Amino acid sequence: MSDRRTLILQAATRVIARRGVRGLRVEELAAEAKVSTALIYYHFGDRAGLMRRTLEFISERAERYTEPSVSPRSDPRAHLEQMLLLELQDAPTVKENSAAWGELRATAVFEPELREQLRYSTYEWVEYAAGLIRRAQEAGTVDEDVIAADSAERLTTLVEGLSERWLSGSTSLDRARELLRGAVASELPLPGRPGPAPAPAAGDRRAGAQD
Amino acid sequence: MSDRRTLILQAATRVIARRGVRGLRVEELAAEAKVSTALIYYHFGDRAGLMRRTLEFISERAERYTEPSVSPRSDPRAHLEQMLLLELQDAPTVKENSAAWGELRATAVFEPELREQLRYSTYEWVEYAAGLIRRAQEAGTVDEDVIAADSAERLTTLVEGLSERWLSGSTSLDRARELLRGAVASELPLPGRPGPAPAPAAGDRRAGAQD
Repeated sequence: MSDRRTLILQAATRVIARRGVRGLRVEELAAEAKVSTALIYYHFGDRAGLMRRTLEFISERAERYTEPSVSPRSDPRAHLEQMLLLELQDAPTVKENSAAWGELRATAVFEPELREQLRYSTYEWVEYAAGLIRRAQEAGTVDEDVIAADSAERLTTLVEGLSERWLSGSTSLDRARELLRGAVASELPLPGRPGPAPAPAAGDRRAGAQD
Repeated sequence: MSDRRTLILQAATRVIARRGVRGLRVEELAAEAKVSTALIYYHFGDRAGLMRRTLEFISERAERYTEPSVSPRSDPRAHLEQMLLLELQDAPTVKENSAAWGELRATAVFEPELREQLRYSTYEWVEYAAGLIRRAQEAGTVDEDVIAADSAERLTTLVEGLSERWLSGSTSLDRARELLRGAVASELPLPGRPGPAPAPAAGDRRAGAQD
């Protein structure tokens, strides 16, 4: 990707995180990125094209800052938990990325042309998480009866919901992280053992069946 | 509440659900509600006041359409599950309400004056859900080790996240409802029993402890 293209996408993410997609005008973006509006149109075609590429840029950037220190090969379960928790950090890039992602999702409710890119980025994230759960099941750190695709979709949806509650002032960051850790514990039980578990966390209990 | 005040709030919800908060101008709302802009300012003071009252209106309306057929006294667990599932319906009022709620939450990231009302409405919803979980624990349909406040906050957050994924085209309504039912099953295990449970759903397994 050309340097100026990257500069434009970084600037678009900053502007969206600061004032929302609906506050984004190409003239202002050009000023923020210190380029001409013509260059923006040259690289992205139109506003919708710019929004799609910004979504893609945000997803790829999230992959970098959510890269855990634990290897997915040696411990896929810990890798997944770290990856999800790294979405909830009081670091400028993470907050900016989360705010822009949430805003683009909210905008897609009203602007259908964003939906395909959003669906694709969401699908990739869910699939990556599901793959980690399956590897954890093979490694014996997640119960084999867990449906990886379901738990992955729920956990990533919960991350989005917690992020929105945090950024909109309805919950604290510490609380959001605590709730997410609890969700990992209840979504991904260790393989069943008969005895009582030491120091169970919330939700870490055997479930009976319901409809 | 006066009839015209209600008409204005209904119209505001419709407009927000159709085009977003950022697309809402008082002149257009006046046209939609068939009242004068002066009447809107008379009832709500300013745009921020109008937004706060709209949030409150949406919350109260949600309480009505999510009122389950099962009594919270006779079966608080089923009441809670129904109440949450009723947020995910392909009915015009529900879609409109969910779209407007999600949009107001997304807007609160950028407009701090919305946050207090949003936090209050969120708190009331979470507390109501937590109360049902505690009653279900007393009634013996939810394990006593579940932390009601945590599960309530997670389940309501998940409803918001699923609703946004549905409305933004990243998941289907059926899938969202299936994922929510699975979340209720894994968040709210029945009181622990030693034997295997019949037909366990996803996540319905005994959990070991993790950090």
